[in-house]
Amino acid sequence: MDRLTRQLSFVQEADRLKGVLRRTQLTDPPRRENSAEHSWHVAVMALALADHAPAGTSIDTVVAMLVLHDLVEADAGDLSVHAPAAAQERQHAAERAAADRLYALLPDDQGAELRRLWDEFEERATPEARFARALDRLQPILQDVQAGGRAWREQGVTADQVLAKVTLIEDGSPSLGRFARRLVEQAVADGILAAAPDDRC
Amino acid sequence: MDRLTRQLSFVQEADRLKGVLRRTQLTDPPRRENSAEHSWHVAVMALALADHAPAGTSIDTVVAMLVLHDLVEADAGDLSVHAPAAAQERQHAAERAAADRLYALLPDDQGAELRRLWDEFEERATPEARFARALDRLQPILQDVQAGGRAWREQGVTADQVLAKVTLIEDGSPSLGRFARRLVEQAVADGILAAAPDDRC
Repeated sequence: MDRLTRQLSFVQEADRLKGVLRRTQLTDPPRRENSAEHSWHVAVMALALADHAPAGTSIDTVVAMLVLHDLVEADAGDLSVHAPAAAQERQHAAERAAADRLYALLPDDQGAELRRLWDEFEERATPEARFARALDRLQPILQDVQAGGRAWREQGVTADQVLAKVTLIEDGSPSLGRFARRLVEQAVADGILAAAPDDRC
Repeated sequence: MDRLTRQLSFVQEADRLKGVLRRTQLTDPPRRENSAEHSWHVAVMALALADHAPAGTSIDTVVAMLVLHDLVEADAGDLSVHAPAAAQERQHAAERAAADRLYALLPDDQGAELRRLWDEFEERATPEARFARALDRLQPILQDVQAGGRAWREQGVTADQVLAKVTLIEDGSPSLGRFARRLVEQAVADGILAAAPDDRC
């Protein structure tokens, strides 16, 4: 196969992400968000919130990483960040298998380059990956607040669980981490997020 | 308002693009594509088809441009590329007004920088803008072929109209332009795109 044919098969597989539904609820129209829309929204966030990344972070790399970060869900589907540890482990294995298949569709040199970007995102060892992961965690919290906590209620998620995910935001961006913490506290104060399991809204 | 508040208002407005429906049909699930998904898909294409850009083109700039290129549709909505000239002119005016409002939500320095990127895309004066526009035109053709020509039939679009749009692809990427021309010819041969108005499928 020539390069273009391989590249187009990758582009065509990407299309399937539009049918992968996340737990996050949109408000207008009121429906579940899909992984393609989510990926786009976090890329917009990287551009809009760039000055919350540590000095020297390449925002270009962050944007490319976020455009690609959920592509594996075309095969592996989406799993809530609040799912149990065993399910998360199975999901990680499925995502690695998906990455093996999907990036191999591209011409070898290009597949290796874009796969490295996904591995970098997963490993969280660079400022770019940590900032990208922070945005990936912040976006659903913003959406959940905007939707009045509907996705949280549907999953029975409480503030301690959401705050446990905020540490990843703090790790990538101290200022966005502080903001996310305040946002969660406000959600509890507003009664749209239960403080603890025995206090569900 | 502090910088973060202004940045977050921009991020929140972006969310509305998920509700802006394009004429393009998806196959699985079979429904109209929205502008957020489309924006993400063309950003993936920029990464996957990078070697079809003229030498020296900054793909980072192309990706950022494509992430932002349809944001104005949050206010202005989407218009088919095959709509009459007068409607296109009204749409351009609405999009400029939308850009004035949306980019002004951001802190001034940042709003000016991202607005420049959108203006660059619109003006098509740089290799980055021409390649981005080429991908923006190629993506719906790929989707329309994949969906068996449904969006073309619904709009009564014929091959001459689609080929008129292929010139913009050729302008941004000669190799993708040649490919798009072959794709359109094949669509006519396969009977999913009418050759002329008196030969509608």
